[in-house]
Amino acid sequence: MKLGEMTWPEIGDLDRERFVAVYPIASFEQHGDHLPLLTDTLECEGITAAMEERAGDRIVVLPTQWLGYSFHHIHFGGSLTATSRTHVSMVVETVDCLVRAGFDKVLILNGHGGNQADMRVALQDLRERHMEARVYGASWWEVAQPGLDEVRTAGPDGSGHAGETETSLMLHLHPDLVRPARPVRGGARAPSAYESEVQRFHMLEEVSPRGHFGDPAAASAEKGERMLAAIVDSLCGIVDDILSGRLDPQPARES
Amino acid sequence: MKLGEMTWPEIGDLDRERFVAVYPIASFEQHGDHLPLLTDTLECEGITAAMEERAGDRIVVLPTQWLGYSFHHIHFGGSLTATSRTHVSMVVETVDCLVRAGFDKVLILNGHGGNQADMRVALQDLRERHMEARVYGASWWEVAQPGLDEVRTAGPDGSGHAGETETSLMLHLHPDLVRPARPVRGGARAPSAYESEVQRFHMLEEVSPRGHFGDPAAASAEKGERMLAAIVDSLCGIVDDILSGRLDPQPARES
Amino acid sequence: MKLGEMTWPEIGDLDRERFVAVYPIASFEQHGDHLPLLTDTLECEGITAAMEERAGDRIVVLPTQWLGYSFHHIHFGGSLTATSRTHVSMVVETVDCLVRAGFDKVLILNGHGGNQADMRVALQDLRERHMEARVYGASWWEVAQPGLDEVRTAGPDGSGHAGETETSLMLHLHPDLVRPARPVRGGARAPSAYESEVQRFHMLEEVSPRGHFGDPAAASAEKGERMLAAIVDSLCGIVDDILSGRLDPQPARES
Amino acid sequence: MKLGEMTWPEIGDLDRERFVAVYPIASFEQHGDHLPLLTDTLECEGITAAMEERAGDRIVVLPTQWLGYSFHHIHFGGSLTATSRTHVSMVVETVDCLVRAGFDKVLILNGHGGNQADMRVALQDLRERHMEARVYGASWWEVAQPGLDEVRTAGPDGSGHAGETETSLMLHLHPDLVRPARPVRGGARAPSAYESEVQRFHMLEEVSPRGHFGDPAAASAEKGERMLAAIVDSLCGIVDDILSGRLDPQPARES
Amino acid sequence: MKLGEMTWPEIGDLDRERFVAVYPIASFEQHGDHLPLLTDTLECEGITAAMEERAGDRIVVLPTQWLGYSFHHIHFGGSLTATSRTHVSMVVETVDCLVRAGFDKVLILNGHGGNQADMRVALQDLRERHMEARVYGASWWEVAQPGLDEVRTAGPDGSGHAGETETSLMLHLHPDLVRPARPVRGGARAPSAYESEVQRFHMLEEVSPRGHFGDPAAASAEKGERMLAAIVDSLCGIVDDILSGRLDPQPARES
Amino acid sequence: MKLGEMTWPEIGDLDRERFVAVYPIASFEQHGDHLPLLTDTLECEGITAAMEERAGDRIVVLPTQWLGYSFHHIHFGGSLTATSRTHVSMVVETVDCLVRAGFDKVLILNGHGGNQADMRVALQDLRERHMEARVYGASWWEVAQPGLDEVRTAGPDGSGHAGETETSLMLHLHPDLVRPARPVRGGARAPSAYESEVQRFHMLEEVSPRGHFGDPAAASAEKGERMLAAIVDSLCGIVDDILSGRLDPQPARES
Repeated sequence: MKLGEMTWPEIGDLDRERFVAVYPIASFEQHGDHLPLLTDTLECEGITAAMEERAGDRIVVLPTQWLGYSFHHIHFGGSLTATSRTHVSMVVETVDCLVRAGFDKVLILNGHGGNQADMRVALQDLRERHMEARVYGASWWEVAQPGLDEVRTAGPDGSGHAGETETSLMLHLHPDLVRPARPVRGGARAPSAYESEVQRFHMLEEVSPRGHFGDPAAASAEKGERMLAAIVDSLCGIVDDILSGRLDPQPARES
Repeated sequence: MKLGEMTWPEIGDLDRERFVAVYPIASFEQHGDHLPLLTDTLECEGITAAMEERAGDRIVVLPTQWLGYSFHHIHFGGSLTATSRTHVSMVVETVDCLVRAGFDKVLILNGHGGNQADMRVALQDLRERHMEARVYGASWWEVAQPGLDEVRTAGPDGSGHAGETETSLMLHLHPDLVRPARPVRGGARAPSAYESEVQRFHMLEEVSPRGHFGDPAAASAEKGERMLAAIVDSLCGIVDDILSGRLDPQPARES
Repeated sequence: MKLGEMTWPEIGDLDRERFVAVYPIASFEQHGDHLPLLTDTLECEGITAAMEERAGDRIVVLPTQWLGYSFHHIHFGGSLTATSRTHVSMVVETVDCLVRAGFDKVLILNGHGGNQADMRVALQDLRERHMEARVYGASWWEVAQPGLDEVRTAGPDGSGHAGETETSLMLHLHPDLVRPARPVRGGARAPSAYESEVQRFHMLEEVSPRGHFGDPAAASAEKGERMLAAIVDSLCGIVDDILSGRLDPQPARES
Repeated sequence: MKLGEMTWPEIGDLDRERFVAVYPIASFEQHGDHLPLLTDTLECEGITAAMEERAGDRIVVLPTQWLGYSFHHIHFGGSLTATSRTHVSMVVETVDCLVRAGFDKVLILNGHGGNQADMRVALQDLRERHMEARVYGASWWEVAQPGLDEVRTAGPDGSGHAGETETSLMLHLHPDLVRPARPVRGGARAPSAYESEVQRFHMLEEVSPRGHFGDPAAASAEKGERMLAAIVDSLCGIVDDILSGRLDPQPARES
Repeated sequence: MKLGEMTWPEIGDLDRERFVAVYPIASFEQHGDHLPLLTDTLECEGITAAMEERAGDRIVVLPTQWLGYSFHHIHFGGSLTATSRTHVSMVVETVDCLVRAGFDKVLILNGHGGNQADMRVALQDLRERHMEARVYGASWWEVAQPGLDEVRTAGPDGSGHAGETETSLMLHLHPDLVRPARPVRGGARAPSAYESEVQRFHMLEEVSPRGHFGDPAAASAEKGERMLAAIVDSLCGIVDDILSGRLDPQPARES
Repeated sequence: MKLGEMTWPEIGDLDRERFVAVYPIASFEQHGDHLPLLTDTLECEGITAAMEERAGDRIVVLPTQWLGYSFHHIHFGGSLTATSRTHVSMVVETVDCLVRAGFDKVLILNGHGGNQADMRVALQDLRERHMEARVYGASWWEVAQPGLDEVRTAGPDGSGHAGETETSLMLHLHPDLVRPARPVRGGARAPSAYESEVQRFHMLEEVSPRGHFGDPAAASAEKGERMLAAIVDSLCGIVDDILSGRLDPQPARES
């Protein structure tokens, strides 16, 4: 169910304890020469639409928050970003309302690498506010990595901003929005802002003059369809684990 | 054009001075027994889609920001709200990026009464930050009031939250999302939070036990179509006035 | 009674539930060639002094807060402004103390157009903090408009910053502070920052090179006296309505 | 000159470099059984009025900011307080506007002990913002201590909140506001919040059940008149020192 | 060199461009039954002391900031935590001063898992402030993982809060502070707050009733000595990479 | 006892009501040509180490917070400062955790003049949060002034930043860190930022071109030892007064 399509009496009638509220957060930022600025948001919408079909009896889905943290893309015109402070507050206050409305199990579905630090701070703040609520955060490309790796063929160039994975998903979901002249593959995938062990917050233009990583040319709509299925598999599995309690913390056994 | 469907090189090629960036802000809040929580957002999306058809050569449109200020609706389960502080920051930071990207004419299109105070504070803050940019704010039901009044038949009950106007628009735009059992008309339209001269910030349940005002029964899809046209007429006129400079301030003549 | 002239034991003895605490907020900003910077504050003090005479048995009056939001006047030297964030906090924290001290009915009496957005945000924040308190806001020129219109002769030029109304009030209250060389009337009243349906936050110099609107020459002390009476009539009526509960929200009747 | 009684063209014509802007900050808080809540503010107004008479050709005076930091008085009903954060911002933003308007010499005249910590933080913040401006802070009872000591007869009970000094000043300035039944002297003056070397922020009720210190009975209007003269002497001397540069820092001589 | 042991003229004489400023951030939080609250801080001090010996000609070392983010430990008495907002500001403002003082290459050496989200947000904020400075962040157990794995024998239980690694380091650095009765190994290492792909911010007591993970019994001073060497190897390598530019971003080659 | 060397079970077993938690706050700032940047912090560590020896059965000591407010020193390279806002939050949040952990008697031991305003604001905020806790603040050179004066021989040049007192303490505690070429005495001690009755926030370079006051040449290790004893005497006396209740507020007797 889409929470936004419900009425308040219907929500009041819902057995909210048996549902996970799925809250997708994405971005509005450049995605190279070939993908539109709203790519991360459109991907999240494609993912949650498929989740609803599969798990509509146990999830309610919020609309995707398209304003994220994208300062590293800001020199590519058109990218929009909140500051971290505002971004964290947006996420915290949205989940705060969900919890107060009786949705005590919330999955923040992240669709943008640049949101990860803020999301973690938001999870910290939310735990300080709501000790009893169970609020989870997951980035789709991390939880679905094994499944995605089975589809990807570009090897180390498969993943990454606007590369094989994102381009495939967009060819499947919104082929009309993918520009035909896809950039050729890069020889080696450059490290993104936070992916190496030594972290520096890179501006995108420092690591990719055209704003993409990996190999968009390796993308296909068919791959995108399989990738979407893998992502939805993983996320629906997580929903089930949340509902069954399998994700609840297990104290370390002491031998 | 939808800004979110463009690529960064396309935006770079755009003659941005000849365009108005339209940034719709709405809400996620209850709309009575018969309309969905995302009503304000869906209306904004319908309005901007029609604006693009009409004025696509002079506007770029952002996606609708669905998180607004809705504290007065919070006791109707499922409504989500930002605090005013966060809400103002979201609006300011989004427009800030637009201005820095060269869109120096911005129209914030407001689709939710509860956003009005925050929008004004955001306009204040934006002027402090960007003395030279021209940032406008307009609530669609205010700028289109004459045209809307021609369509409305419920008299004093025509406007108002989830009443004749909103229900008609939704019957036109999303008939599947309007519940069939529409509430009967209220005898008199109750004042909303800030509409009387003496202002108090009312909780919605204080003024409407079911969360709507006015007469949803007077709504029709045909009225909705005509209302949408009137709104788009008004807003496209404003866009033209912004581009032509007719909205620029005119110093008082001194006799 | 002036709250500031009371002692704490006297306040403790007061039947605070039977009183409305009146909290005037004004500004410190330029008022053209002929009126002093403290005009808005002096008007509020004149208004509340007259209210005390009339309704001293049911109101306590705070001193006027002279620091308001006046960024649009800042280029006219001597104007002082708080940021919106600080201004909202000042209002919220002052009322917060009143409510905690047992004054659960508060009327914020606004004497400056530039304060309106901040005042509304403050009313929002105060409702979030004090669900049960009844906090009202009213701008004197809005609630007294019918009475003021009966006195004004300058037609569309009657109202406005430093125009017929304000100049008349000052001629009545502080004739020594009104400069003799009053500017001639403007041909047409220019829109102030937020008065048209399409809002932009104008700097005053954009709409009035000398910092006033309307027709100061139409002002007179006699008009000022009658205007003051009209304002006090309206505000005392509001006080009575607050005490009698007539301003309490009335749920919409459903037919 | 009172800045609030001037017009913007008059301020523009002023040789602002030859003036010190005097900005009084006070409080709205209980002053025992015998003095009104606005005591600190009324004292500041009396002091600055006398300063204008004496030094009107070299100072401009702002109205007194009556909202201060008074949390320690809050349990005595009617006391109002800002938070430190808001209070510091109020002071900083007010002085900020003065400096930007060309008043680069500012004297913050403090009339309330509870404001001292916030004032110092404001002076810090202002130096960070305006390295070149000369912003001073002075509490009147500190800079005038030698002169005040000559008048006081109550010995160690002479000073202190609502004691001999404040009661005398009010008997001189506003005898109608001093309640006739003045409390008897306390045997020993209790330390106020921050006056001992080991600091604790005391609530007033912990150190004075009736909200005053010292010996109000020793007060007289005649003493008040002499005290006022001593205070004005000191403050006008400081104004002259600011203008002559005698208060500018002198690097330590190295022998 | 320890920056704190230098004088300002010495720093002025330093060729700051040839140095990396190393800024260690740690925590003050419980470490099980056997390690003291200051463990993370003591480890950082041990690491930076060894780095100074090895790379004293190319690093300056700040004292360890012992106040970190430790809310998840707060139910174990004695743990201290800043909020994320304050914590981020502390890190940002400290580095801000370093950059302004001419240290344009800064390595934030993190010694506490709970600091990681805040550190990333700080890196974001710092890039927004100082586009040209090169500020890096590294958690010692991440950058030295290969070397540490060679020493660890407890397998999956080797790492983790207060486990084999931390206990070994403390046995080497501060044997007197390690309680003799070390807890037995846990059968399986429980996931810490953010280590699984689905993130939840766990309170420590949920995952470890005594506040430790892994196998403290496997620890030894000899292992600690070797671990320290591995950590220092890695960090000194990073310092060299920063100075040589090897860590500078490399744009993706396009084939 | 050092709190940082304890484990959480040991703290749980402690009779926390019988202990004062001592929390030293210092700075990281220039101290002239002859003393290191960390001087204030090293002094606090020396003082608390001696306090532990004397009063270890009734105090627990936190590590010294070395990040303070030092903006006035920032032009002497290497000085680090937090903003007042962050600094106050650091102090408040640290004490907040102590109070929540059952340490309801806290002594903030201040080792840096520039921290005094922030410390007072922190004491204010802490009282607002924890009405019942007893949180004290003391600057060591203020509480120990009589004892210090007995040792000092440089007269008015004895105290002050990096002068006789601080240099003596460092010669006793860390002789290796005192540069041999001590600056000659200044002829007269210049006022520091806040010490005169008229306050201005001076930058250090305005009052001392080399960054010190007073007479470092008068310092000796022997004096330092005696000074340390005097300081520890005073502080242990305060600890005893806190525990015995002698520092509790005493309401003024009324005769």
